[in-house]
Amino acid sequence: MEKIVVFGLGLIGGSMALSLKGKNRTFIGVDTDVNHTEQALAFNLVDKIGNLEDVGDAAIVIIAVPVSYAPNLAVKILNKVAKNTLVFDVGSVKTSICEAVKLHQNRQQFVAAHPIAGTEFSGPSAAFNSLFTGKKNIICEPKLSGTYFIEKALSLFDELKMSTTFMKAKAHDKHIAYVSHLSHISSFMLGKTVLEIEKDESSIFTMAGSGFASTVRLSKSSPKTWTPIFLQNKKNILKSLEEYIKNLSQFKELLVADNTEEIYKTMANTHHLKKILAEIK
Amino acid sequence: MEKIVVFGLGLIGGSMALSLKGKNRTFIGVDTDVNHTEQALAFNLVDKIGNLEDVGDAAIVIIAVPVSYAPNLAVKILNKVAKNTLVFDVGSVKTSICEAVKLHQNRQQFVAAHPIAGTEFSGPSAAFNSLFTGKKNIICEPKLSGTYFIEKALSLFDELKMSTTFMKAKAHDKHIAYVSHLSHISSFMLGKTVLEIEKDESSIFTMAGSGFASTVRLSKSSPKTWTPIFLQNKKNILKSLEEYIKNLSQFKELLVADNTEEIYKTMANTHHLKKILAEIK
Repeated sequence: MEKIVVFGLGLIGGSMALSLKGKNRTFIGVDTDVNHTEQALAFNLVDKIGNLEDVGDAAIVIIAVPVSYAPNLAVKILNKVAKNTLVFDVGSVKTSICEAVKLHQNRQQFVAAHPIAGTEFSGPSAAFNSLFTGKKNIICEPKLSGTYFIEKALSLFDELKMSTTFMKAKAHDKHIAYVSHLSHISSFMLGKTVLEIEKDESSIFTMAGSGFASTVRLSKSSPKTWTPIFLQNKKNILKSLEEYIKNLSQFKELLVADNTEEIYKTMANTHHLKKILAEIK
Repeated sequence: MEKIVVFGLGLIGGSMALSLKGKNRTFIGVDTDVNHTEQALAFNLVDKIGNLEDVGDAAIVIIAVPVSYAPNLAVKILNKVAKNTLVFDVGSVKTSICEAVKLHQNRQQFVAAHPIAGTEFSGPSAAFNSLFTGKKNIICEPKLSGTYFIEKALSLFDELKMSTTFMKAKAHDKHIAYVSHLSHISSFMLGKTVLEIEKDESSIFTMAGSGFASTVRLSKSSPKTWTPIFLQNKKNILKSLEEYIKNLSQFKELLVADNTEEIYKTMANTHHLKKILAEIK
């Protein structure tokens, strides 16, 4: 019986447990939130609830807690594991956790992963077993993980039907700021702007269509998950946010100046995204 | 045989023709773009191609051209119609067109409508016959339309399975700036920002997930449709855009200051949108 310990029983940890179930495996869940542990048992995401001591004889340990807790937790886990235990995290920021475990004597047992999958929902009730199917996974600093552990991790991500790419942690954090973190801020602030001004909310109900729904979908994401991501990837996010604000301000000036031609061009130029978006699942 | 003339054979005009087909009706399409007229015939959206002279004996005239052309076209059409012809437009800005026809002797035959439906695709090839099903429709200044014409328009929107709400043109334009026009600008500029910085585009392919795809979906919308909308509703859009930029800048300052508590609160407060979004089809 292979013992898998999952720290963090939210959307990602819960879905991972669900997706890897069966095959002679026992799942132990760990979460500081009692609602999460109760729900995880009720929804049958894990077989039982445990704690840090459970990692001692685990085959695999999955770290799916908010990124503010993950680096310290990774160190504590690596302190306690047996010599064949694979430990991997699934966080959306990779530099901090890689830095935290960099000099750990068991560094080679750790794999820094980022399965790029999610929905705007959160908690154990949001978990489902096809969340990762067909999606992309990034593994950072693969050379610092031992071959045995990288292969073990890759076979798990294969089992989840994900395609894995290797990347440096710094490059990951820079790029993900643009294609994920900035989208979340843009969406949250759009939601905020509309809520503030539409004091008569019934007009939102009446007039908002699918375009609005799509653009603010991410503003339903969990503040518990996203606040620490924004803070931990602050440097890259600030740069992307500045560029975004600059582009919005330039667009505003074009509008003030009635510059039809440049407005048209600015929009037409982003059409190049069409073919990129067609590839995204 | 009821003759319906549709000006503008893009996503909206084309879908409307498709949705209202049959029932002893003939559809005449008018479009200045030869590609559009050829495709509209090829896809069987309309029965034949015509011109402004066709409105003389039409039962219904639908104006689905870009909003920059709609006001003048509405006047020209009203100049030529028989006394029982219903003329309605479907544009996303309502003040300009209502102003243009305000003193026309046939004003009562005109209905200013805005069926809130669309996709990020455009042109005759994007048209489909369930685009309007279950969506919302706004009719502005209904008291300036004659009862016979309002009822005729309402029965068409019923046929399209839309629910109609009445609204003043100014209120429409103010609210739609927030729940639709601003979303498009936010999405276009997000796409622009990411394209500019991700010089190595392959990283977008690798790392962009469904969240990014959803948030930039609207940036695929037609610049031909949207440039005139932004210009025609400039005043309201500038106000919403300023608020949006202000909120993004404030969020940036919270991040610079590592103000965890306020970042969390800001995000948690937009959660109120959840129940609103649940209502949007």
